[in-house]
Amino acid sequence: MEPIRPDLVPNPAVRRLSFYLRQMESFQRKGLATVSSKQLGDSLGFTDAQVRKDMSYFGQFGHPGVGYPVEEMITQLRHILGTDKTWNVLLVGAGNLGRAMLAYRGFDVRGFRIVAVFDADRNKIGKKMASLMIQPLTALEKTIAAQSIRLAILAVPAEHAEEVANRLVEAGIRGILNFAPVTLTLPPKVAVNSVDVAVQLEQLSFHVNFPALEPSGQS
Amino acid sequence: MEPIRPDLVPNPAVRRLSFYLRQMESFQRKGLATVSSKQLGDSLGFTDAQVRKDMSYFGQFGHPGVGYPVEEMITQLRHILGTDKTWNVLLVGAGNLGRAMLAYRGFDVRGFRIVAVFDADRNKIGKKMASLMIQPLTALEKTIAAQSIRLAILAVPAEHAEEVANRLVEAGIRGILNFAPVTLTLPPKVAVNSVDVAVQLEQLSFHVNFPALEPSGQS
Repeated sequence: MEPIRPDLVPNPAVRRLSFYLRQMESFQRKGLATVSSKQLGDSLGFTDAQVRKDMSYFGQFGHPGVGYPVEEMITQLRHILGTDKTWNVLLVGAGNLGRAMLAYRGFDVRGFRIVAVFDADRNKIGKKMASLMIQPLTALEKTIAAQSIRLAILAVPAEHAEEVANRLVEAGIRGILNFAPVTLTLPPKVAVNSVDVAVQLEQLSFHVNFPALEPSGQS
Repeated sequence: MEPIRPDLVPNPAVRRLSFYLRQMESFQRKGLATVSSKQLGDSLGFTDAQVRKDMSYFGQFGHPGVGYPVEEMITQLRHILGTDKTWNVLLVGAGNLGRAMLAYRGFDVRGFRIVAVFDADRNKIGKKMASLMIQPLTALEKTIAAQSIRLAILAVPAEHAEEVANRLVEAGIRGILNFAPVTLTLPPKVAVNSVDVAVQLEQLSFHVNFPALEPSGQS
């Protein structure tokens, strides 16, 4: 197999990698050793040509007529996505959304662990949320350094999101999952993923408006 | 202008429409009357060819050297996305995430209004969350019919998501925004948008793993 060149993988393909990984894990649970690009594509609503192209970023994977080796693909996908190790994640915002994130059971299995919670509200600082003490934003630098944190979940009101995001970046955070319905302007070295729940609903209203269309599926 | 053919718009393009709309609104706030495909593309990290192709689904929009008319585009994008009207939305799950959704300030401006809350927990039923009385799932059909609800937000534990989703569909829901980290198997007439927060973090860990790459931007 050729060496992996993750720097050649375009962003939309990175998103598909997450879906390939989940699907490969599903195939593994079903006891499959290899799957074809058509099987993988069909299961996710992608063409097999798309699958083959995405897989080609990893070098020579699978063989015509044999298919992709499920276990090896899982190992490689986890490695390239970075989830073959554990990531310490910090959370800013000890409100309802923050509380929901802390209770979210989908993180652990992916190697994400929320290890610190911050809030600007003096009434919340010092109190506990789950097993974590809510810290003031002034403790960001110290905590980030002490726990080698690179990822943050931003669950603060829209009007504070930009300011807090900038503090996070200054303190060493390199990836931000943003729930505030605002566009963050941050240095290019920082990766931002914004979950705009209204955009998600808008995609649904489009499909409900035009029910003759193919449904959007699970993406 | 040719008639709009929304049935020709592929799914990834529908997602981009939401981003175009937000960017056009931003241009409008800045007082711009027209923008070029390059301006629009640059602002969102898409190529101008991509923008022109997406816009072509709407028929003849804009002219070479003149650009796209901002106000008209906003009207059209809202129309095709269905957000030129108000959508009644129901919420299942009166936990922390549900509470956060009910408080989310990004919905109103997009025409989404959570008008009913449901939960399976007897201890929650009958109590109030914000101004809404938490209803039992047995009231789904009646409430959906009475309030003409087609969209639902599913904020329930993973192990209940599939069952509740099926009840929603039977009761008339046609679009589901799912927060549970499970893949829902539903009839093709139903549009599903799953927000898997672990997938979102995984995209960030990829970029933090390989900082030489272009950042993912706001998508």
